[in-house]
Amino acid sequence: MIYGKVALIGLGLIASSMFWSTRRAGAAGTVAGYDLSSEARDTARRIGLCDNVCDSAVEAVKDADLVVLCVPVGAMGAVAAEIGPHLKPGATLSDVGSVKGRVIEEVGPHLPGGVHFVPGHPLAGTEHSGPEAGFSSLFDNRWCLLVPVEGTDPEALATLKSYWEALRANVEVMDAEHHDLVLAVTSHCPHLIAYTMVGVADDLRRVTDSEVIKYSAAGFRDFTRIAASDPTMWRDVFLSNKEATLEILGRFTEELFALQRAIRTGDGEHLHAYFTRTRAIRRGILEAGQDTDAPDFGRVKVER
Amino acid sequence: MIYGKVALIGLGLIASSMFWSTRRAGAAGTVAGYDLSSEARDTARRIGLCDNVCDSAVEAVKDADLVVLCVPVGAMGAVAAEIGPHLKPGATLSDVGSVKGRVIEEVGPHLPGGVHFVPGHPLAGTEHSGPEAGFSSLFDNRWCLLVPVEGTDPEALATLKSYWEALRANVEVMDAEHHDLVLAVTSHCPHLIAYTMVGVADDLRRVTDSEVIKYSAAGFRDFTRIAASDPTMWRDVFLSNKEATLEILGRFTEELFALQRAIRTGDGEHLHAYFTRTRAIRRGILEAGQDTDAPDFGRVKVER
Ligand SMILES: NC(=O)c1ccc[n+]([C@@H]2O[C@H](COP(=O)([O-])OP(=O)(O)OC[C@H]3O[C@@H](n4cnc5c(N)ncnc54)[C@H](OP(=O)(O)O)[C@@H]3O)[C@@H](O)[C@H]2O)c1
Ligand SMILES: NC(=O)c1ccc[n+]([C@@H]2O[C@H](COP(=O)([O-])OP(=O)(O)OC[C@H]3O[C@@H](n4cnc5c(N)ncnc54)[C@H](OP(=O)(O)O)[C@@H]3O)[C@@H](O)[C@H]2O)c1
Repeated sequence: MIYGKVALIGLGLIASSMFWSTRRAGAAGTVAGYDLSSEARDTARRIGLCDNVCDSAVEAVKDADLVVLCVPVGAMGAVAAEIGPHLKPGATLSDVGSVKGRVIEEVGPHLPGGVHFVPGHPLAGTEHSGPEAGFSSLFDNRWCLLVPVEGTDPEALATLKSYWEALRANVEVMDAEHHDLVLAVTSHCPHLIAYTMVGVADDLRRVTDSEVIKYSAAGFRDFTRIAASDPTMWRDVFLSNKEATLEILGRFTEELFALQRAIRTGDGEHLHAYFTRTRAIRRGILEAGQDTDAPDFGRVKVER
Repeated sequence: MIYGKVALIGLGLIASSMFWSTRRAGAAGTVAGYDLSSEARDTARRIGLCDNVCDSAVEAVKDADLVVLCVPVGAMGAVAAEIGPHLKPGATLSDVGSVKGRVIEEVGPHLPGGVHFVPGHPLAGTEHSGPEAGFSSLFDNRWCLLVPVEGTDPEALATLKSYWEALRANVEVMDAEHHDLVLAVTSHCPHLIAYTMVGVADDLRRVTDSEVIKYSAAGFRDFTRIAASDPTMWRDVFLSNKEATLEILGRFTEELFALQRAIRTGDGEHLHAYFTRTRAIRRGILEAGQDTDAPDFGRVKVER
């Protein structure tokens, strides 16, 4: 047992996975939960999510040793303002938001002295959301980035680290600005681009009937999976990580224009060189154990 | 047995999968193969790919009832010019190229009267290439589009259809222009965009050390898989499907700019509405049985 009482605020994919995983690990004495939506609370009670589902955030965080904000990034400030005065002295407040700079700005000021603020971000998710989407193995062997702020208590940081490790995540520490740039590249921009491509396909639906859907397996369906994630979560991510996202998108459009030009002018060498260079990154990812080499993510069963 | 002798030209992923699948189905009396590279021919002989690996395309197509061009799209014209005079009267010539308009333009003129030209395109692939990449189940329950040209013999078309069905593909007939537009949306543009995003990440490698690789699981790794495909194949696809690709890319950039603007101006409503709309397409794909609903393509094992 790492914390006597853990409180999870916002009972969606991440919080529900944290609960099942915490229970699997025996990492908390008791877990309380709260969600703004009474429907989500009812569902949580029905499926046994959390030892205790409360009807207010204030009630949920009472006496908690660890409070984790699992709401969309844009809602974190308001939740912090509400629960701040009710946090137990010596408690740790953390979050799982996909953007760190803005969360730190908006949550930090609401926390009383004596409460340890240790922002975090588990790099694990699926395209599903809500209390029923979670499962205990979501964080297994995935990264969890902890982003301590100025003056974070080393002991509070160490304890939170051991908690995530009990949930079978690999923990790294990083600063907020760097986090937001790296995530803009590995997650935020890919999501925006996938959403855009799916939007274009949707516009074309009348021209192509439902053929875009019928023949989606040619590559497009991977984009639709990425673009099926929760709209509120992603709206908040882009509004919160504006600077890094726009910076990376700027580079993206530049390179896309260069490739477009190569297509238009028939510059096969440029295209070939570009497509060869990008292969190396895939090799790096496979060597780092971050994906399966099985064709089509293992969706295809191989037999000769 | 559907064809007495089948000849496969270009022994890569698609041809090798066709061979294993043809053998599984007993769909051909004998299968001959040829590849330009002697290394590929040696590999094919070593792993038992094709009943007979020939040292020239002309030798491979001798007496064949079906000849399938499985080379990159840009190489099809030259291969057709070479083998055209040696095709058996009454034989069917097909291909598996990802673009159809250009293949028809470049291959058609080289075929003697009495040879049936039935272009095709199986919508199945992986990010791997070469003679060792193939496996018998690649086409199982996937689409194969046949794109008959003016004057295609209905019987030749019907026989080729039954051949692909024996390989367990679902066959549809479509015209070339429509094929090239639909594939620009479902495959060609998604690939170009994935290549571009991976290129941007590669540029940033120095800024982010290897963190882009380390934390790729956040979404980016799906792009790297798409962008790991064969550079020659994809160069040829873009040069061959120039018009439709540029048309779709134009729409893509337009929509991306609108989303970028919404991020810059903080227009959360626009973002939320856009992200909600794109979810519907994913539902359509799942309903059409074109992908798994398992989180993360089933990469993640679900347990509570
Ligand atoms: N999904 C991922 O891939 C992923 C990965 C890593 C981190 N994250 C981060 O994790 C957080 C949660 O994401 P998720 O995927 O778990 O989302 P989710 O499944 O949509 O869950 C979020 C839950 O929070 C509730 N909520 C919203 N505002 C609230 C408030 N003020 N007080 C209490 N509950 C509130 C929502 O209720 P309503 O539905 O009724 O609004 C919803 O049930 C986000 O900050 C996201 O950036 C997500
Ligand atoms: N991969 C996919 O996802 C996919 C899906 C559907 C359709 N297709 C289409 O299928 C075709 C083959 O793709 P693939 O994935 O099988 O590619 P691949 O694995 O790279 O195989 C192509 C093979 O053709 C050989 N080749 C090139 N020029 C040749 C020539 N003039 N004569 C004989 N052999 C030649 C190549 O040899 P070298 O390597 O020595 O050049 C290579 O071994 C392409 O037209 C592609 O558009 C691909």
